Amino acid sequence: MINLILCGGSGTRLWPISRTLMPKQFVSLFGDKSLFQLTVERNALTCNSTFIVSNAEQHFLALDQLEEVGSTENHFLLEPVGRNTAPAIALACLKIDPDTIVLVSPSDHLIKKQDAYEKVMHRAKELAEEDHLVTFGITPTHPETGFGYIEANGEDAKRFCEKPDAETAQSYIDQGHFYWNSGMFCFKAGVFLEELAKFSPQMLKACKAALAQSKGEQVVRIQHDDMAAIPADSIDYAVMEKSAKVKVVPSDIGWSDLGSFESLYEELPKDEFGNTTSDRHMSLGSKNNLVLTSDRMVTTLDVENLMIVDTPDALMVSHKGSSQKVKQVVELLKEKGSDLHHVHLTAKRPWGSYAILEEEAGYKIKLIIVRPGARLSLQKHFHRSEHWVVLKGTAEVTLDDEVTLVTPNHSTYIPIGGVHRLTNPGKTDLQIIEVQVGEYTGEDDIVRIQDDYKRSS
Amino acid sequence: MINLILCGGSGTRLWPISRTLMPKQFVSLFGDKSLFQLTVERNALTCNSTFIVSNAEQHFLALDQLEEVGSTENHFLLEPVGRNTAPAIALACLKIDPDTIVLVSPSDHLIKKQDAYEKVMHRAKELAEEDHLVTFGITPTHPETGFGYIEANGEDAKRFCEKPDAETAQSYIDQGHFYWNSGMFCFKAGVFLEELAKFSPQMLKACKAALAQSKGEQVVRIQHDDMAAIPADSIDYAVMEKSAKVKVVPSDIGWSDLGSFESLYEELPKDEFGNTTSDRHMSLGSKNNLVLTSDRMVTTLDVENLMIVDTPDALMVSHKGSSQKVKQVVELLKEKGSDLHHVHLTAKRPWGSYAILEEEAGYKIKLIIVRPGARLSLQKHFHRSEHWVVLKGTAEVTLDDEVTLVTPNHSTYIPIGGVHRLTNPGKTDLQIIEVQVGEYTGEDDIVRIQDDYKRSS
Repeated sequence: MINLILCGGSGTRLWPISRTLMPKQFVSLFGDKSLFQLTVERNALTCNSTFIVSNAEQHFLALDQLEEVGSTENHFLLEPVGRNTAPAIALACLKIDPDTIVLVSPSDHLIKKQDAYEKVMHRAKELAEEDHLVTFGITPTHPETGFGYIEANGEDAKRFCEKPDAETAQSYIDQGHFYWNSGMFCFKAGVFLEELAKFSPQMLKACKAALAQSKGEQVVRIQHDDMAAIPADSIDYAVMEKSAKVKVVPSDIGWSDLGSFESLYEELPKDEFGNTTSDRHMSLGSKNNLVLTSDRMVTTLDVENLMIVDTPDALMVSHKGSSQKVKQVVELLKEKGSDLHHVHLTAKRPWGSYAILEEEAGYKIKLIIVRPGARLSLQKHFHRSEHWVVLKGTAEVTLDDEVTLVTPNHSTYIPIGGVHRLTNPGKTDLQIIEVQVGEYTGEDDIVRIQDDYKRSS
Repeated sequence: MINLILCGGSGTRLWPISRTLMPKQFVSLFGDKSLFQLTVERNALTCNSTFIVSNAEQHFLALDQLEEVGSTENHFLLEPVGRNTAPAIALACLKIDPDTIVLVSPSDHLIKKQDAYEKVMHRAKELAEEDHLVTFGITPTHPETGFGYIEANGEDAKRFCEKPDAETAQSYIDQGHFYWNSGMFCFKAGVFLEELAKFSPQMLKACKAALAQSKGEQVVRIQHDDMAAIPADSIDYAVMEKSAKVKVVPSDIGWSDLGSFESLYEELPKDEFGNTTSDRHMSLGSKNNLVLTSDRMVTTLDVENLMIVDTPDALMVSHKGSSQKVKQVVELLKEKGSDLHHVHLTAKRPWGSYAILEEEAGYKIKLIIVRPGARLSLQKHFHRSEHWVVLKGTAEVTLDDEVTLVTPNHSTYIPIGGVHRLTNPGKTDLQIIEVQVGEYTGEDDIVRIQDDYKRSS
């Protein structure tokens, strides 16, 4: 069985924790591991390999996180633009042997009951082997109006239901054979494509055309115009609601889609006063608050039912129950031309990461970490010079025709216009402080002359 | 008339904005000027010079701020330890000509009605000339339980009243001839000392003894043990409640002691939804909140009656009405050995200022600003080397026996153990980035060999 992980979500609902370039699935909300990593590990027990559909910007982030959990058998399909779930799944299935069973899973959900999950997987696999399209119906715990429902008769799917109003949701719960639509599926790649051919032949055709023009095997890159030409649709609309082969496996697996700060609050550990636990939070008389801290001390005095989300460059304080307004905030930030919805001060790069420590008119200071063996592009700048102080590891510095080694507690200088490259030739992380000095220190003042990661200027 | 400004408050009630080393009076809460600067300017109209009683740590901070508002006629008396208001006033009066009228004013209060204030001052001066001890009785606007009251009969003080309970406070308001005790006074220096001699002769004697051992004239430094030997008492207890010479000038001057975030909220400009205005605050549906921002974006969703106080290293979120608990927070921080109650990441120094941009194991990064003509101490460190990158201005760098000039966009290196000094020989601010590298980067790893500001190692 192959685990097909849909990783394309841009995750604005948990802003300011999640950003376009660091969506929810890559954030460590529970302990050290991200939801994406937890997904990979959870399915590694039943699947032999992982096939990840993501966008190009998240590729290296995912690769990094896969390496951290020791996952080596990975394929990627990179979408230049999202077209919803059906094309993503179809493109992947077209690259997979038709008889292979595919477990489709979102990358950003939480599943707490591992034993129950494994039993459910076992049954789904049996049904998939019998050429069924399997959905996982989550046993509802309350009349949620934010999810779609599936009406079932035993394991037979009777009907897919849109997000209901409160009354309808209650009637679903009362009737007892309605389940939440989890977005997880299990089927043979070939069976899914046969059904897609029946119900959305245009989509299948466009997907095949896009793949014919794609590049790469281990990492399949679809071209922008080809992807844009594929009709956008969800797997539910495109196939599931129409196929007669659909089965439902009732799943009481401790599932949460973590689709809001309210649902995150429900899942996080809390103290005796109902506040989420954090060693950076000091509460005097506060109750039932979600408090997510970064490196600052957060003190709360007599506040209740708040959601306080602190990050190095943005703070959100919300009434519990109002987090649907986070989307409006993100829209407003976009309108204002702010970058706050897009990037964190700390950003992952294919070669490692950087953190902006300070940015003022005339200078910018970064902490740069380069992974062993990695190197930044050969580049130059027109508006800034750079001072590099090595903190840890050894830097191989190329400047015009010279290559020098710079060791900890030594520094070097890159003048404006100097063609330069920073390489970590060693076996441990290279850490440097970069002080940029210049009239303009924007990230876009860069001319890339050569880049290992095929990034353009 | 001399304006005697009492500047010794440590101001923990507005934490995290105020810290021990940056108390409320020096913070710019209203526009560009601090409450201390507003006090100096307000009284410059009626007073010829300023006599400031503060502690030694705040001396340079006050000097800086005086320079900013162009105040040149200043005397200082530096207390090594606080002994409440009576000794502070007595020590100052002993340095002032007995016939000179002294206007005693706290440094951290707000007075909004300038015209009314000037009229009140005029009357106070007349009474002081007739050898009265004048208090300013603030016309109460509500039955506040947090202030002491003065009962008056016309301009005659009948009685000083402790902080009342709610019922008593209401009865004071109903009776109509009770005033808030503002902590401002006006009298001839000699008259005050005569009354002090009558009612607190021990204090006067100890003050005279302390002055006999003090150093300096423009800046009078009291020795620690001498100061500690002075009985601590307020001017109210030590003199005002006992003297028959006390007069009250009723004062409807738009006064606030800004003694809590709640009272600060009342005084700050607010938008149509009752939120204090800030261009770093984005509100969606929030009402009646105090939101004090630093450099971070603060977003609030549907929250009401909160006080959100954001600083670079500490965030406080309080229910409006609960700010008396701020004191407990400060106590807890002290217990934990935290420095958060004591210093900001940005700290004033006699030679300029520094801001800690980043501090991690192995390194620390500072932005250092040295004022024209100023220099840091000649010093060395045992645990860290320092890389300096000049951003603006010119640095004169002494390292062991060598002196070099370092200009913008150039850097220099101070090895561990190197005896060094940073000087700004120019006419504009010198800005440098300092990258400290070493096993230990605490502020106390410093040996001062020579210091213009007489600081010890």
